[in-house]
Amino acid sequence: MSATVSWGFLSTANINDELLAGAAESDRVDVIAVASRDGARAEAYARERGIERAYGSYDEVLADPDVEAVYISLPNSLHVEWSIRALEAGKHVLCEKPLANTVEEARAMAAAAERAAARGVRAMVGFNFRRVPAVALARQLIADGRLGTIRHVRAAYLASHVTDPEFPLVWRLQAEQAGSGALGDLGAHAIDLAQYLVGDRIAGVSALTETFIRERPLPDGSGRGPVSVDDAALFVARFGGGALGNFEATRFATGRTEGLRVEVNGAGGSLVWELDSLNHLLFFDGADEPATQGFRRIQVTRAEHPYAGAWWPDGHTIGYEHTFTHEIRDLLVAIDDGREPEPSFADGLAVQQVLDAVLRSAAAGSAWTEVGA
Amino acid sequence: MSATVSWGFLSTANINDELLAGAAESDRVDVIAVASRDGARAEAYARERGIERAYGSYDEVLADPDVEAVYISLPNSLHVEWSIRALEAGKHVLCEKPLANTVEEARAMAAAAERAAARGVRAMVGFNFRRVPAVALARQLIADGRLGTIRHVRAAYLASHVTDPEFPLVWRLQAEQAGSGALGDLGAHAIDLAQYLVGDRIAGVSALTETFIRERPLPDGSGRGPVSVDDAALFVARFGGGALGNFEATRFATGRTEGLRVEVNGAGGSLVWELDSLNHLLFFDGADEPATQGFRRIQVTRAEHPYAGAWWPDGHTIGYEHTFTHEIRDLLVAIDDGREPEPSFADGLAVQQVLDAVLRSAAAGSAWTEVGA
Amino acid sequence: MSATVSWGFLSTANINDELLAGAAESDRVDVIAVASRDGARAEAYARERGIERAYGSYDEVLADPDVEAVYISLPNSLHVEWSIRALEAGKHVLCEKPLANTVEEARAMAAAAERAAARGVRAMVGFNFRRVPAVALARQLIADGRLGTIRHVRAAYLASHVTDPEFPLVWRLQAEQAGSGALGDLGAHAIDLAQYLVGDRIAGVSALTETFIRERPLPDGSGRGPVSVDDAALFVARFGGGALGNFEATRFATGRTEGLRVEVNGAGGSLVWELDSLNHLLFFDGADEPATQGFRRIQVTRAEHPYAGAWWPDGHTIGYEHTFTHEIRDLLVAIDDGREPEPSFADGLAVQQVLDAVLRSAAAGSAWTEVGA
Amino acid sequence: MSATVSWGFLSTANINDELLAGAAESDRVDVIAVASRDGARAEAYARERGIERAYGSYDEVLADPDVEAVYISLPNSLHVEWSIRALEAGKHVLCEKPLANTVEEARAMAAAAERAAARGVRAMVGFNFRRVPAVALARQLIADGRLGTIRHVRAAYLASHVTDPEFPLVWRLQAEQAGSGALGDLGAHAIDLAQYLVGDRIAGVSALTETFIRERPLPDGSGRGPVSVDDAALFVARFGGGALGNFEATRFATGRTEGLRVEVNGAGGSLVWELDSLNHLLFFDGADEPATQGFRRIQVTRAEHPYAGAWWPDGHTIGYEHTFTHEIRDLLVAIDDGREPEPSFADGLAVQQVLDAVLRSAAAGSAWTEVGA
Repeated sequence: MSATVSWGFLSTANINDELLAGAAESDRVDVIAVASRDGARAEAYARERGIERAYGSYDEVLADPDVEAVYISLPNSLHVEWSIRALEAGKHVLCEKPLANTVEEARAMAAAAERAAARGVRAMVGFNFRRVPAVALARQLIADGRLGTIRHVRAAYLASHVTDPEFPLVWRLQAEQAGSGALGDLGAHAIDLAQYLVGDRIAGVSALTETFIRERPLPDGSGRGPVSVDDAALFVARFGGGALGNFEATRFATGRTEGLRVEVNGAGGSLVWELDSLNHLLFFDGADEPATQGFRRIQVTRAEHPYAGAWWPDGHTIGYEHTFTHEIRDLLVAIDDGREPEPSFADGLAVQQVLDAVLRSAAAGSAWTEVGA
Repeated sequence: MSATVSWGFLSTANINDELLAGAAESDRVDVIAVASRDGARAEAYARERGIERAYGSYDEVLADPDVEAVYISLPNSLHVEWSIRALEAGKHVLCEKPLANTVEEARAMAAAAERAAARGVRAMVGFNFRRVPAVALARQLIADGRLGTIRHVRAAYLASHVTDPEFPLVWRLQAEQAGSGALGDLGAHAIDLAQYLVGDRIAGVSALTETFIRERPLPDGSGRGPVSVDDAALFVARFGGGALGNFEATRFATGRTEGLRVEVNGAGGSLVWELDSLNHLLFFDGADEPATQGFRRIQVTRAEHPYAGAWWPDGHTIGYEHTFTHEIRDLLVAIDDGREPEPSFADGLAVQQVLDAVLRSAAAGSAWTEVGA
Repeated sequence: MSATVSWGFLSTANINDELLAGAAESDRVDVIAVASRDGARAEAYARERGIERAYGSYDEVLADPDVEAVYISLPNSLHVEWSIRALEAGKHVLCEKPLANTVEEARAMAAAAERAAARGVRAMVGFNFRRVPAVALARQLIADGRLGTIRHVRAAYLASHVTDPEFPLVWRLQAEQAGSGALGDLGAHAIDLAQYLVGDRIAGVSALTETFIRERPLPDGSGRGPVSVDDAALFVARFGGGALGNFEATRFATGRTEGLRVEVNGAGGSLVWELDSLNHLLFFDGADEPATQGFRRIQVTRAEHPYAGAWWPDGHTIGYEHTFTHEIRDLLVAIDDGREPEPSFADGLAVQQVLDAVLRSAAAGSAWTEVGA
Repeated sequence: MSATVSWGFLSTANINDELLAGAAESDRVDVIAVASRDGARAEAYARERGIERAYGSYDEVLADPDVEAVYISLPNSLHVEWSIRALEAGKHVLCEKPLANTVEEARAMAAAAERAAARGVRAMVGFNFRRVPAVALARQLIADGRLGTIRHVRAAYLASHVTDPEFPLVWRLQAEQAGSGALGDLGAHAIDLAQYLVGDRIAGVSALTETFIRERPLPDGSGRGPVSVDDAALFVARFGGGALGNFEATRFATGRTEGLRVEVNGAGGSLVWELDSLNHLLFFDGADEPATQGFRRIQVTRAEHPYAGAWWPDGHTIGYEHTFTHEIRDLLVAIDDGREPEPSFADGLAVQQVLDAVLRSAAAGSAWTEVGA
């Protein structure tokens, strides 16, 4: 229905492959360029994946007039510089989450996105789980009032990537590059999902964080270095509208690989979604007759479900990379329609403010800490 | 194998029926007396259930020389007086949870239990979920080191008893009688389970509590009164040994009726148990070969499982009241063996100290609060 | 509300313990006598369980004027003689399933039950799973037309008791005493459940049976003997009303202990129940709006659910022995009300006719075989 | 690593989209042509999906020298002609299942495939569920002997596509075009999965089939016509090696959409897989210590799992279309390696022989019917 958009990748990160797969399932996306500070790496990457142009610097992608949109999966510390430069160069931006390493950076990015929007240039942050059909259905049910007043939100992202003490000190375990650990990497997803589903923002938090393994081998084999981020972060929260939140992110939950789970309890019903069962939504409808009330296990693959109509016939499930396909599709539609995509950089900033409040609370003996104050 | 023990009930509370059912499945328990401040009520209760003696005051039970043990299911505020008086009268005591309304009361009760023990008189607090075979198996696995260093404990008791704003202001919703709300009623179970499973005590907490419905109809129909306890309590915690805890108790989780659930993650494996599936334990064994690792769903009904050997052949499940049968059985065995039963009043005091720390933290803006300090 | 009924046990079988536990939870049942052909065994049994009278022959129980009802858990081959003699002696009879070893025996028993009924003496066959609250709720939903025209019934009883080739040649593995193997022992439950739930009878079957291990050690250690019953029986069926049936019973399903499961599909909805999750019923209601359709997991413990109101508060589960409590209760109510209890000996005969058709079909190369023809 | 293969599609069937999506995820597949007897339709299809060449006859695809492989998703009755002509034209063939409408057709196709193989031209039948990582892992475990002697296979494909009596009389409901109904469409998958997993062939069957709705509206609105295929097919079976099989395929299981499920019980363990939870495998290992035995829920997304290593990091699930990606990949690898791909046309013939035996048995009053006799 609409024209194809040409994309450039800043970085050769692994996550690109999911986006590439997502893009391959869209007929409106053409990835034409990739950049790395290591030109040879960019070239190898481009050759292996059939991408036309390889650049040895990010600047070159921004200077390429054929590139209309860029995907930024650089380490978090580089998001601010390159997102803003890309927007200023007139490129639409899809930036990975978390938006930035600090609230200040995120604020600058949100401001840049606002300026760019005035010129029709769009910015989106990669909270891809909003794009799961079951999650989108959950949002619809809540927005339609099927849960009534929201009382509780429970969101956790349990993983076990680094339980081995010999797992090396990669950039994700260093505060300067990653900002935070499980909190920003995993918890950011849980926070965004919660705020999106409930349609409300977290107002205050009380938190604790822990680093179980404090020293790890350096990736280059030259000894060991200190882990400067959290292995786990837990916090309790209040939403603006009065709901209570319970959040947890950890890289030390043995047996949980990508254990993202969210539960919402309202006066009139409840919803549960888990990444491990991506295509299903559990829904308890308090309006059902008492004798047959129970959580319904809805397989969200029907033509009338969000996103699902674009895929296979009812009953055939989709996988993780489709969240990227939907993400890109929603960005393209927003570009077409001339409006801000969601989640916007402002949404990314809102998450960043929660991450910041969590770290401040944890540093202050779990003291109650208002978000954004 | 051993002699029958004659029991008296202080109060005609509903919970007695579960204990009676539990007792009926034991061949060593004989309930011979019941008391109520309302003598006619005691008589009706005794007649309906075939109990021999009905008394119009608790004193009379304690004065009855044939009564060897008493079951105390009075409102929490009365636990301290009648537990201590019963122990001093030489009766073994099974006291419902939470042990008391305050740490001071619990401390007095634990001291009384210690004095009584010197005379061979035993005291137990009714944390009956320790007696679920699946929970006992979980404890064994952890004690045997199958989970390695414990990193995380997640325990929640989600219920929905009072989501209706017109639910009346019963004693459980009034602080003077109940001490606390969801916290003491539901959360106490979660706390005791967590400490029991891990074999460690909670050292500090940061908490928040909420009362969603602040005024309710008086039971006698004479207007409305203020709810003085929490509808929900959430806290994050640190155990003495370094594990992190995530606790939640609520009466506002629509769709959850008795949603007690506990998960423990250790360096070497994980365990999950839910009351909704009382007979099953989920166990992830990190020692399994990687390609076939996964949570095992163990039906804990085999002859070699704790308690289960005393019941039906493998594969036949038990119900809620069996937790009381096992509780009574363990108390009787402790009496026979001349040692303190578990959970002891000291264990009950340990839970009370956590409840107290939670309330203090919640009152102090979620400030980090050490347990017992 | 009503008078107590005094019971006698014919045999000291293991299954008695479940009935005893079930009886203990009823306040209207008093087990006063037990018989065994081995008088010493009866005495030991009576002593251990606190039963007043022990007899060295079944006749003595029938001659005891205080015994009002008898429980028959003898080997299947003895059901016919002792059921009929007990009914003729004016004792109410609860006879274990399957009703008999042959259709002829079952027919004689049903006739005896009809004669006894004229004198107010009642007979029931022990298909205890009808008494599970979740099963009774399923029956209500179907009887209320919530599933519309029934299309499919799938019922299986998967077990693994004898997968070990060294498991001895007990009476259940010998045709003269047991009639059949997995078919009569396990499959009979599946058949009765299916006919009860659908409210219809199986009209014809095509079957196959297998004995995987054809020789086993004799229990007395004197060598090995031939297994003369089926280890597994499978059959497809048509119900009178046009529904299709799929049935399976096996003692060789490793990992399944008491794997009884039934699923019913109707034009308007579906139901699934499994013994492993005794307290839950899965219900798909085709009348739900399409976007939120899904199987509801109903925890059948609410006051308004069948049987459940007599037990613990909502959300507290019951166990296997309660099926016996409910069975006895329903028999007592039928005695009080002066009507035939269900499942009657006529229902037991109906199951026997299916078992017979299955064996005849299997013997005739799976040829289609009408039930009762 | 290897060269791209250019594909042509015979037909514009819906299923093509799944294959296209699967192909899009492969970097070695280029779909360059599509044909339809309706040239305009082919052109519209090609335009919408960006396929270069559109043909108004299947012959033209076979005549196109650039086309190296064809995908045949024509109605089953046309498989035989076009598969054989394509193979004779030197095109590799991926033909949808079931292979044909009759054993004779399938035999001719298998013979053609054998002749083609001699010239390096390959033929595969589209039993795509073999390509699910969890299924492939199950096959590995069985081939490695982890289940010991196989005793039982239970395979069902429960669906509900046509429960509405007003669903029109499409080609799949007409015997001349579809061969059979639920049996060939759904049951064929169950049969192939079972034979693949066990590594054995079904030797004999006893079956029944049913058509619940015997007349339906014609698609062109010109009245009603007779349904000439089965709505449901059930059969019991024996495998060559002695295992028992229980098979069911239906389009009338309300609440089940694509309810493919297979369970295998061996002397040493059991496996369960369901399409609804495509990424998971349940595995009961009888070698586990008794106290912690239970079905393990394995999320089959680890690098060491079949196929999974090619996709996302551990813990990220894949969807239905990946089965096509893997299918194509396996065909390409077989072409590269110069060997027959699996499932071969001979495998397709083996399934066809079972379908034929089922229909013969059903027509003969469920009489035992040997496969291939």
